[in-house]
Amino acid sequence: MAQLDHTHDPKLESWVASANGHADFPIQNLPLGVFSPRGGGPRGGVAIGDRILDLPAALAAGLFTGEAARAAEAASGAALNAFLALGAGPRQALRRRLSEILAQGSPDQGKADGCLQAASDCTLHLPARIGDYTDFYVGIHHATNVGKQFRPDNPLLPNYKHVPIGYHGRASSIRPSGVPVRRPRGQTKPPDASEPGFRPSQRLDYELELGVWIGPGNELGEPIGIAEAPGHIGGYCLLNDWSARDIQAWEYQPLGPFLAKNFASTISAWIVTPEALAPFRIPQPSRPEGDPAPLPYLTDEADRNEGGLDLELEVLILTPAMREKRLPPHCVALSNARHMYWTVAQMVTHHTCNGCNLQPGDLLGTGTISGPDQESCGSILETTLGGKNPIVLASGEERRFLEDGDEVILRARSRKEGFAPIGFGECRATILPSL
Amino acid sequence: MAQLDHTHDPKLESWVASANGHADFPIQNLPLGVFSPRGGGPRGGVAIGDRILDLPAALAAGLFTGEAARAAEAASGAALNAFLALGAGPRQALRRRLSEILAQGSPDQGKADGCLQAASDCTLHLPARIGDYTDFYVGIHHATNVGKQFRPDNPLLPNYKHVPIGYHGRASSIRPSGVPVRRPRGQTKPPDASEPGFRPSQRLDYELELGVWIGPGNELGEPIGIAEAPGHIGGYCLLNDWSARDIQAWEYQPLGPFLAKNFASTISAWIVTPEALAPFRIPQPSRPEGDPAPLPYLTDEADRNEGGLDLELEVLILTPAMREKRLPPHCVALSNARHMYWTVAQMVTHHTCNGCNLQPGDLLGTGTISGPDQESCGSILETTLGGKNPIVLASGEERRFLEDGDEVILRARSRKEGFAPIGFGECRATILPSL
Repeated sequence: MAQLDHTHDPKLESWVASANGHADFPIQNLPLGVFSPRGGGPRGGVAIGDRILDLPAALAAGLFTGEAARAAEAASGAALNAFLALGAGPRQALRRRLSEILAQGSPDQGKADGCLQAASDCTLHLPARIGDYTDFYVGIHHATNVGKQFRPDNPLLPNYKHVPIGYHGRASSIRPSGVPVRRPRGQTKPPDASEPGFRPSQRLDYELELGVWIGPGNELGEPIGIAEAPGHIGGYCLLNDWSARDIQAWEYQPLGPFLAKNFASTISAWIVTPEALAPFRIPQPSRPEGDPAPLPYLTDEADRNEGGLDLELEVLILTPAMREKRLPPHCVALSNARHMYWTVAQMVTHHTCNGCNLQPGDLLGTGTISGPDQESCGSILETTLGGKNPIVLASGEERRFLEDGDEVILRARSRKEGFAPIGFGECRATILPSL
Repeated sequence: MAQLDHTHDPKLESWVASANGHADFPIQNLPLGVFSPRGGGPRGGVAIGDRILDLPAALAAGLFTGEAARAAEAASGAALNAFLALGAGPRQALRRRLSEILAQGSPDQGKADGCLQAASDCTLHLPARIGDYTDFYVGIHHATNVGKQFRPDNPLLPNYKHVPIGYHGRASSIRPSGVPVRRPRGQTKPPDASEPGFRPSQRLDYELELGVWIGPGNELGEPIGIAEAPGHIGGYCLLNDWSARDIQAWEYQPLGPFLAKNFASTISAWIVTPEALAPFRIPQPSRPEGDPAPLPYLTDEADRNEGGLDLELEVLILTPAMREKRLPPHCVALSNARHMYWTVAQMVTHHTCNGCNLQPGDLLGTGTISGPDQESCGSILETTLGGKNPIVLASGEERRFLEDGDEVILRARSRKEGFAPIGFGECRATILPSL
């Protein structure tokens, strides 16, 4: 696991004034991404306050040497796969050097200032070419809640507490925050219909997930042991795994969700590094009395001690009427990554235990992270009990499922006494009407 | 659908003598792939008899002009994605020109002869970078046979005859014919065990499938109508979707197969074009009396008339003992692509009906194509009834599931009176013992 060092010092301030006290991107965060400045092509950058440090420009200005320069070079192109492949050493060297460059009183301020872009003038892209996307199901409250609706007699299946359940998702339809999502059409069979029909989904939902970027991969046939798994994790993002529940209910047996999910997934555009999250590691949440112990291949003391993550996760909705009335987005769920039943290291190790190869830039989703109560449900299906109990928004509007024009916003915040809070930046998208 | 022209003339012969009467690669086939000659790097090529035409060399020799040159250029690199993106027009122009160049009496023989490599001296690679891999389930006999074993009361679920069921697979672990496959380890829970364990799979299986290469893709949010679907199909291959049945039985609910499948898939290395297969199109097999008609979005007259494919599909096994005794591979199943319940065009249209985007070089699998009887089952799970009735091989050995050292070979052959038979080349791999 990543060590704490001076880059985590909560007293550290940046000469980029907007960074100090910034909700997402203070100097203690330093996430990486790919952006285009106005009139320019895509390139690697680092978020700092409301600015983006242009990495190829900073390299050209001679701000990096040695291992940090190697990392900055790998993070300068239109996709960060090469940077992710480098792993922890170069990534940490880059973080230390970025912290120096951007710190209050840095002798490099003059050179670096010319490499900053206003984030509001830039377009954010996917930070990497996603080879394969896998979605897990480690939110046990979500699995139980949804299980009750799809299988009332049998909510949590017998394998759940033994297997970090996962399945393959669609990589091609993942888009960065801000790209609208078109309501999908598909086959559905309402409970009262004798035959299925083809129509726009009537039960469109969000899913509050954490995304995990794979750093160095493994060769086909060579599993990643649980102790080595953290070395293969390149960073984190927010993930909204949009779901059409009516399509899902009709199609998902026996091979799992397909068109109910693959029309779009939205991620936050910045890769938040394991180092930035190091202060917020917690022990893996203890399993309820009577739950089976994980099998030995999923068991590791370090993972048990610090495999969890204390990260507040929030879902907000902004409707067209709210936008018109200038109301702020309405929080419909507040959850926390600590509600994961399996750790990210366990996800990585399980994924590769059969020899399956992960590659730099692959994306893992945790699955929906719901908390134990109705206010912490990560999908509207859970919050409204399948549409039965509508959410009432600040505008007075009701929502059983998402409507056209609704914007869904995910946020993540880490807070811990003695450390600067950091965030992930937003993961947001608006629903367009069906074709 | 592709038209018949002089390139399909069964009397056409090539000056490449081994092509004439070749089981797979006569001049009527002309499949494309990526190969490395001895000591050289990967590049595009065309299989002709026991030779490979080096496309960049043929381009440099001035053998192509116009649209055929554009296609040959796109097919010259280390991956054919750019060629697949071009679609039917350039692909057909290239086919016509290749047929001219390689035909008996061609004035280009002198130039082209220098561009041939002996296939036995070359290494074959994956023909494209596979972005996403989707596996369908269109073999209705397979779905019924397997359904009986996993769900005795409920073999074919109510959605099967309405929905071309599919799910996402793993792209990173797809390998070309010849690359060995390591027996996976994983969680299994034998029927008599109270708790799951972690061990090498004891029920390792093959799956006989057809692979479909996506040609031009579609934009996210823009479905491909059924009439347009054939224009998005770039070619075909054989696909062995290796499956660990004991891992599958324990993990697959509720989200579908995951580690039971993603440790390896093997494909034949040559892209057999829709043009090469044009003579072997047949009407979509008629649905049994009483089956529902497909919904309108999956209905098209041309697809009904020629959406099927008459293609013999064969599974052979070669064990170490057979290799020692110099016995030939033993045929354990003979099936046919005509047993698909849904057409490839229906697969493409269904996949995109929610707006999901396909990209050039994506791979679709049909799912296991079993015929109606015990001799035409495309998986050993079906042939042996879940291991109960072993296969007896020519060597006298029995197989309930695959053993270490076994080699599985898939073959495809199209035959029709008045046309030259063509094949796909082999799709073969040997099982290595578990780590």
